[in-house]
Amino acid sequence: MTVSGSPQRTFIDGLAQSTSGRLLRQELRHRWPETTDELADINRYVLVPAGKMLRPLMALHAAEAVGGNPSDVISAVLGLEYLHAATLVHDDIIDGDDTRRGLPSVPAAYGIPTAIVAGDHLIFSAFESLVDEPWVASPARVVAAVGELAEAGRDLCRGQALESRLVGDLEEGARWYAEVVRLKTGALFRAACCIGATLGGAGADVGAGLAAYGEHVGIAFQIRDDLLSFVATPEQTGKPGTSDLLNGRPTLPLVLAYQAAGDAERDELRAVLDRRAARDGDVDWVHRLVDEYGAVAGARAQLASHVRRALAELAVLAPSPSTTVLTDIARWITSEEQ
Amino acid sequence: MTVSGSPQRTFIDGLAQSTSGRLLRQELRHRWPETTDELADINRYVLVPAGKMLRPLMALHAAEAVGGNPSDVISAVLGLEYLHAATLVHDDIIDGDDTRRGLPSVPAAYGIPTAIVAGDHLIFSAFESLVDEPWVASPARVVAAVGELAEAGRDLCRGQALESRLVGDLEEGARWYAEVVRLKTGALFRAACCIGATLGGAGADVGAGLAAYGEHVGIAFQIRDDLLSFVATPEQTGKPGTSDLLNGRPTLPLVLAYQAAGDAERDELRAVLDRRAARDGDVDWVHRLVDEYGAVAGARAQLASHVRRALAELAVLAPSPSTTVLTDIARWITSEEQ
Repeated sequence: MTVSGSPQRTFIDGLAQSTSGRLLRQELRHRWPETTDELADINRYVLVPAGKMLRPLMALHAAEAVGGNPSDVISAVLGLEYLHAATLVHDDIIDGDDTRRGLPSVPAAYGIPTAIVAGDHLIFSAFESLVDEPWVASPARVVAAVGELAEAGRDLCRGQALESRLVGDLEEGARWYAEVVRLKTGALFRAACCIGATLGGAGADVGAGLAAYGEHVGIAFQIRDDLLSFVATPEQTGKPGTSDLLNGRPTLPLVLAYQAAGDAERDELRAVLDRRAARDGDVDWVHRLVDEYGAVAGARAQLASHVRRALAELAVLAPSPSTTVLTDIARWITSEEQ
Repeated sequence: MTVSGSPQRTFIDGLAQSTSGRLLRQELRHRWPETTDELADINRYVLVPAGKMLRPLMALHAAEAVGGNPSDVISAVLGLEYLHAATLVHDDIIDGDDTRRGLPSVPAAYGIPTAIVAGDHLIFSAFESLVDEPWVASPARVVAAVGELAEAGRDLCRGQALESRLVGDLEEGARWYAEVVRLKTGALFRAACCIGATLGGAGADVGAGLAAYGEHVGIAFQIRDDLLSFVATPEQTGKPGTSDLLNGRPTLPLVLAYQAAGDAERDELRAVLDRRAARDGDVDWVHRLVDEYGAVAGARAQLASHVRRALAELAVLAPSPSTTVLTDIARWITSEEQ
C-alpha cells in the first residue's frame, strides 16, 4: 500500500476524466452558469470546478450496471453532489472551518447567515433535481428515490448530531464509532448506489445489493480519511496532520489505540484530545501510541473488510464496464492515494 | 377592523380545534413521541404543542375541497409544517432570536451547531413525509408534490437571501418588498394549497387556482404581520412593538411611508433604521410618520387586495365545507386578530 507514486495514483483523476465524469462536469457547468443571483452563485462556487464527484459517479455507474441509460439519470445523480455539498457548507459553519479545497469556505466567503441559507438551498436543489422532468423512470421509482434521499439526509443529520456529542470523548467515541460512520458517510454512498439502481430499473434484490455495496464503500472511504493523517503528509492531504486531533474527533486509529492502551495511556490520550493537542509533543506522542498498538494496521484491516464486503455485494451484477468501475472504486479506497 | 374583542377572535383557535386541526395535532404527537434521540426530541420541541398549523390545515382543506380524503394526505400535509418549522429554526440562528412562542428558541436551547442540523433534519423529514407509504395519490402526483415542495423551499431561500441583503436599506427594500414577501411567505402557502390539490386529485386548472389562492393568502398574511407592530400592542403580538425596527427590516408600512415622505424625512427614516431605532423617541417618530402618510391604511389596502384576489381564485372550487374554511381563512387575515 503506497501513498504516492503508485500506478493507481491517477485512478480517481481518470474516473473524473472518463466519459461519465465529463458528462457530469459539463452538466454542472451548464446548470450553474455565472449569474448575479447570490444563491445560484454560491452553488456554482461549491460545485464548479467539481471535486471527485464520487457519489454521482457511483450512482451513474449503478444505473448503467443495471441496464439504465446515463443520460436519463443525469439530473437525479447530480442531486447527490448537491446534498453532499450542502453538508460540507453546513459542516464548515459547525466546525468553524475557513478553508475548503484551498479556497475560502462558504461561511468564510459569504458569512454564516448566507451559508446557512445556501446549504438549505442546495438541499432543496437536490430534491428538485430528482423530480426534474422529463423523468424516464416510472413515477413510482422516482418516489422511491426521493424516499431514499430523504432517509439518507436524516441519517446524515443523526450522524452529525451524534458525532458532535462525541467530540473529545474517546470512551463514547469508541462505542459509537461504527454508527457515526455508517450514518455520516455510509448513508449518502448507500443512497447514491440505491438511487442509481432504482432509477436504472433494478429489481429489489439488485437494488438492495447495490445499496449495501454503497454503504460499505462509504464506511471504508471514511476509515481511509481517518487513516490519512497517520499515513500521508499534510501536503498530500491538503490539511494539517493534526487536524483531527485539533478538533477532538475520535478517528478509528485513535479509537483502536485507546481500546488497546493501558489505563495511564488512556487517561493521557483523553487529556490530549481534551486540550486539542495544544502542547508540544502531543502529536508525536499520539502517533507513537498509535504505532505501538498497531492501530493503523487495525484500521486498515477494518477498511479492507468493508471493501471485501462491498465487492461481495457486486455479485448481484452482470459483468459490464460499469460493474468494473464500481469494482475499481472499491479497490481504489485501499490505495490511500489522494 | 378590530384587534381584540371581535366576534372573529376565536376563528383561528376554532380552526385548530376543528376535526382537521385535532387530526393534525394527534398525528404530530403520535409521530414525534418523547424520545432520547436528540433530533427527534428537537422536532417534538418545535412541533408539539402545535402552533396555528395554517399551512397543513390549508393543504388538508384544499385536498378535501377537490374531493380528496383527509386521512390519505395527512402525512404529506404535515411536511408543510416541518418545512415551516425548519425555516423558523434557521431564521432564529440568522436573526439571533433567543425566544420563539415564549420559549427558548432552538439555537438558544440547543446551541447553533445543533440548530443547524435540526433545521436540516426537519427539511429531510418534510420530504420523507411526502413520500411516506402507503400513498393513495398516483406516484406521478406524489412526484409533482415533491417538485412543488422543492420549488417552494428554493423560493424561501431566495427570499431569505434577498431580505438579508435589504436589511436597513429602505431604498432597495421598497423596490423589492413584493418579491421578498412572495418568495419568503407566499411560496410555502402556495405549495401547501397546490400540494393539497395535487394529492387530492385536482385537475391542472383547479390546482393552479388553489396555488394562486395560497400565494395571495401568504402575501396577505405577511402584510398582516407587518401591520401588527403598528396596530397591536406588544402583549397581543408577543414581541416588542419595535421588533421590526430593531432588526432593520423594511416592512410594508415603513416602505409606504418612505415612498410618500419628503427627502429630509426619508434621510431620517433611513438613519433610524440604520441605528436600529436605538435613540429615545425613534419609535414614536416612526409611528407618527407612518400615521402622517396613511401608511397603515395603504398597507391594509394592499392586504385587502390580496385577500380579494385569493377569494376570486376560489371560484374554481365547488361549494363545500372545506371551500368555506378556505374562504374564512382568507377573510380572517383582514381581522388582524392574534
